[in-house]
Amino acid sequence: MSDVKHSPLPSTTATGKASSSPHQSLILTLSCPDRSGIVHSVTGWLASRSFDIRDSAQYGDPDTGRFFMRVHANGPKGRVVDLNGLRGEFERDVGGKMGMEFEIHDEGRKGKVMLMVSKIGHCIHDLLYRHSVGTLPVSIPCIVSNHTTFATLAAQHGIPFHHLPIDGQHTKEWQEEQILQLIEEHDIDLVVLARYMQILSPKLCEVMRGKMINIHHSFLPSFKGAKPYHQAHQRGVKLIGATAHLVTSDLDEGNIIQQDVERVSHSDSPSDLVKKGSEIETRVLARAVTWFAEHRVLVNGNKTVVFD
Amino acid sequence: MSDVKHSPLPSTTATGKASSSPHQSLILTLSCPDRSGIVHSVTGWLASRSFDIRDSAQYGDPDTGRFFMRVHANGPKGRVVDLNGLRGEFERDVGGKMGMEFEIHDEGRKGKVMLMVSKIGHCIHDLLYRHSVGTLPVSIPCIVSNHTTFATLAAQHGIPFHHLPIDGQHTKEWQEEQILQLIEEHDIDLVVLARYMQILSPKLCEVMRGKMINIHHSFLPSFKGAKPYHQAHQRGVKLIGATAHLVTSDLDEGNIIQQDVERVSHSDSPSDLVKKGSEIETRVLARAVTWFAEHRVLVNGNKTVVFD
Amino acid sequence: MSDVKHSPLPSTTATGKASSSPHQSLILTLSCPDRSGIVHSVTGWLASRSFDIRDSAQYGDPDTGRFFMRVHANGPKGRVVDLNGLRGEFERDVGGKMGMEFEIHDEGRKGKVMLMVSKIGHCIHDLLYRHSVGTLPVSIPCIVSNHTTFATLAAQHGIPFHHLPIDGQHTKEWQEEQILQLIEEHDIDLVVLARYMQILSPKLCEVMRGKMINIHHSFLPSFKGAKPYHQAHQRGVKLIGATAHLVTSDLDEGNIIQQDVERVSHSDSPSDLVKKGSEIETRVLARAVTWFAEHRVLVNGNKTVVFD
Amino acid sequence: MSDVKHSPLPSTTATGKASSSPHQSLILTLSCPDRSGIVHSVTGWLASRSFDIRDSAQYGDPDTGRFFMRVHANGPKGRVVDLNGLRGEFERDVGGKMGMEFEIHDEGRKGKVMLMVSKIGHCIHDLLYRHSVGTLPVSIPCIVSNHTTFATLAAQHGIPFHHLPIDGQHTKEWQEEQILQLIEEHDIDLVVLARYMQILSPKLCEVMRGKMINIHHSFLPSFKGAKPYHQAHQRGVKLIGATAHLVTSDLDEGNIIQQDVERVSHSDSPSDLVKKGSEIETRVLARAVTWFAEHRVLVNGNKTVVFD
Repeated sequence: MSDVKHSPLPSTTATGKASSSPHQSLILTLSCPDRSGIVHSVTGWLASRSFDIRDSAQYGDPDTGRFFMRVHANGPKGRVVDLNGLRGEFERDVGGKMGMEFEIHDEGRKGKVMLMVSKIGHCIHDLLYRHSVGTLPVSIPCIVSNHTTFATLAAQHGIPFHHLPIDGQHTKEWQEEQILQLIEEHDIDLVVLARYMQILSPKLCEVMRGKMINIHHSFLPSFKGAKPYHQAHQRGVKLIGATAHLVTSDLDEGNIIQQDVERVSHSDSPSDLVKKGSEIETRVLARAVTWFAEHRVLVNGNKTVVFD
Repeated sequence: MSDVKHSPLPSTTATGKASSSPHQSLILTLSCPDRSGIVHSVTGWLASRSFDIRDSAQYGDPDTGRFFMRVHANGPKGRVVDLNGLRGEFERDVGGKMGMEFEIHDEGRKGKVMLMVSKIGHCIHDLLYRHSVGTLPVSIPCIVSNHTTFATLAAQHGIPFHHLPIDGQHTKEWQEEQILQLIEEHDIDLVVLARYMQILSPKLCEVMRGKMINIHHSFLPSFKGAKPYHQAHQRGVKLIGATAHLVTSDLDEGNIIQQDVERVSHSDSPSDLVKKGSEIETRVLARAVTWFAEHRVLVNGNKTVVFD
Repeated sequence: MSDVKHSPLPSTTATGKASSSPHQSLILTLSCPDRSGIVHSVTGWLASRSFDIRDSAQYGDPDTGRFFMRVHANGPKGRVVDLNGLRGEFERDVGGKMGMEFEIHDEGRKGKVMLMVSKIGHCIHDLLYRHSVGTLPVSIPCIVSNHTTFATLAAQHGIPFHHLPIDGQHTKEWQEEQILQLIEEHDIDLVVLARYMQILSPKLCEVMRGKMINIHHSFLPSFKGAKPYHQAHQRGVKLIGATAHLVTSDLDEGNIIQQDVERVSHSDSPSDLVKKGSEIETRVLARAVTWFAEHRVLVNGNKTVVFD
Repeated sequence: MSDVKHSPLPSTTATGKASSSPHQSLILTLSCPDRSGIVHSVTGWLASRSFDIRDSAQYGDPDTGRFFMRVHANGPKGRVVDLNGLRGEFERDVGGKMGMEFEIHDEGRKGKVMLMVSKIGHCIHDLLYRHSVGTLPVSIPCIVSNHTTFATLAAQHGIPFHHLPIDGQHTKEWQEEQILQLIEEHDIDLVVLARYMQILSPKLCEVMRGKMINIHHSFLPSFKGAKPYHQAHQRGVKLIGATAHLVTSDLDEGNIIQQDVERVSHSDSPSDLVKKGSEIETRVLARAVTWFAEHRVLVNGNKTVVFD
């Protein structure tokens, strides 16, 4: 999930994936100003290195004139790829000439996810369950919380749990410093706010820009702010929803990745909405994290391109 | 669809329904302050007149302390009911004592609907088609438009079309006066704004309060106001929706009756959203009109109770 | 969840519910031959004992001439009800005369559910999670499995786990005898087959008739039998589904309680379908168990009436 | 919609599209045995002719070893393309060498659709409405029916209506001969059975293989054959559906293109299911026809690949 331009990964030539599979596969994502010949340049360059395209998707935004692409390609049988070398060559041969922002990922390398949570547990339970049965394609080196509610759950999953409270003894500055250290120490690719109920500082938002997903418990842009299910109940809506979005310093205005809704009725109390909503949140967040981990989410201004 | 308190209907004892069916059926809807014994009083009163309950639904709102009920009951075989008499007796025996607002309808009498439309046709086409094949349980004595776009369509369906423009020669006051005359002349139970693009005066809203449905082309309360699909495109949402609501003088704040959504993607242009959205609008409006016609929609403050 | 006619419950007058709440609430469900006056008789009888109806629903099946009803009613403030006494009086006053099969439940008493599972865990994980946070309104006195896969999970939830294998040393007869003993010992109201991969004997099906729910991993009646997702992949369907149904001795032909589907595409492999399907199964089963626990599921021949 | 191998189209160089738009766009679809280098060969060939790829999608079926691709590309500004020439060159340069079945279409040319219908009208009404407002991207040169029910509707839309009954005076052989003549005369690309209630002969199925879409009123493979909604009612399912599929001589076994479902309840009668189902059929068929017209549906054995 790292971007070659900012945080070059250590070579992944020694992954188990490469040795156990006949092919090493990579995923290339890019965006650049739209023009003729992009697809041909990219596919030609891949062919020249004997990569065989398994899947590709592209989108040109007519409003912004920006072009987006995701390619999934197999390398030649048995050969292990030097990803950093490949990134340099692609920059030299194609990316640089076309003004591309691009990333090249080893498909077999799982992104490293830090989960953050407060006291409401449906999302973290669900993500950890999926992780435990292998259907969430990430590794989870640590869980951070401002409460101790889920320390036992973390232990049951064998994942280090960091209790970082904000209270009389601990300032928010101190807490976020610990978080940043953990991000660096574990080489975190993605932070997931799985019902984390503290507002993050603009600094932390900036450091993890494009790499932090929040689940908001309403169908944005409806019912921003606090207690959205109560707002929804007040307004008498007939569907409630949840939204997974990238975190920006502008609260609840981040790039939307995924949304879903469920039908409700006049007889649903606010607590019924909370209950129904928690199921929507759970699946919306899991879907967004999975897409991110598979490098399907590209940023396009205040929006996302999702190649699902 | 008329309320007995404000606009007593002419006796419906001569409907074809009553003669062709072994039973005459009625639908009773009511709301009142919640207290013990309401259901028993109502069912007892119906039993005392030999009405047999086929279907009933109720809801007590814990926030407002108000109770809502809808009962569908068969009269005795072969007997034709004097509805006005029945209303008076129910008021005397039950409704008056419990502070009820109630309506009693002959199930076999179709509500009279005035359609209003401007230049966008998917909703009116759909409603007229459903009407023509008998799946929209209403009669449509007239269509009103500020344009002539659908005059031919109305003629094909044999429905009088009234072109009531607002232009250099015709003021809005004049136009709404014509509308009110048509409503009175045809004893209209419900006005449906099937993509009618003029804002109605507070006076007209007040006269038809609780009896006028609009289709808004967004998932309210998101994207109020003009060009909601363009707003949705700007925000990058992943679902778009439509909302059918009762019209109040506070634009886009009326009581929501029905909502639905469809999935969209980054590659959908505003015009794609308009196209997808028109299918949602069509089915949401048809559903809302059907529920209204079946006396399933009760007003609860700024919300609705829908006994579907 | 017990039927008064077959298995009278011990008096529940001492439940915490009754003392902590101002009202004791009960749920009455019944079915009988359709005729005039049923609703009035039932509501009148409840009123005569000072029960106030909060919610009721009914359905008359025109094909079978059978009538179904579910009533949720509050008892008088502060009074604790003798449910067994009440059942006898209702039988004497109403049920007997109208040929009713009926049940009267204390709303505050949680049904006792035995979970059965083999080696696939998404359903049991989900049910236990919902149980642990209080959103599945049942108690779970024991878990039974023919494998040991989920012994640790059961222990984490503090629920006794019974490993009842069928192997060289243990016959199916022996195993089902243990199951029947557990059902009796724990006064089980409902057995949930949460991906239990053994066919049960007709005897066990008969004993738990109407009280055993299975989750089938297809949209029945499509793809009965083994490996339904592979069958679905072969056929090239564009939606896959799951079905929760009551277990009868006729495999996959039991009364359907709930179904749901998800969209799939040509690019989904059988294992993708298994993954997507497991999410459908999870929510369909949880919904069916919840409805059953709330006494919303009534048997109507080979079908169900669900008052949701 | 024609396949270059069987029915070369007349040159489309004179379409209005080419002259009114700065680019002429084409859509290339292909399938062939999977191997390395397909994407690169195709994109390279397009680039060599100055076609710029706007959109492409591909899929390799691991079960059958077959590869599928759809490319949407813009030609150079102002140039009008000789499609037949282009097909020959592609066959010579790429298609022949890789064993491809391929088609090259002018995006601006609307496919020619023959509608067939009997006496049930929701699908034909919907398709004609979409056609009339320009949201169904096809032309409709003729409507065929074994009844006269929709003669007036056809006339209102200005489309020739051919009444081809099968009765005492007219054999099925005669009727199908007329159909085949109309297909040839109008150069029909697609036949749509919009609730046409006659079984077609194997001969007609064969002639229009891959070019004839039927709407079946069930969620196939459930409830094949007659009266599927009645079958669904009997079984007590909780969702009903509809299926659009390519017609093969093996009834109800054709390649599925699109399916959808709606929730139903115990209280829905068979006629309620028919009513709800007709809305599903309508949108499923419209979607399938649109996808076909946009060359998004490729045949893969008894399945379809749909690049939506």
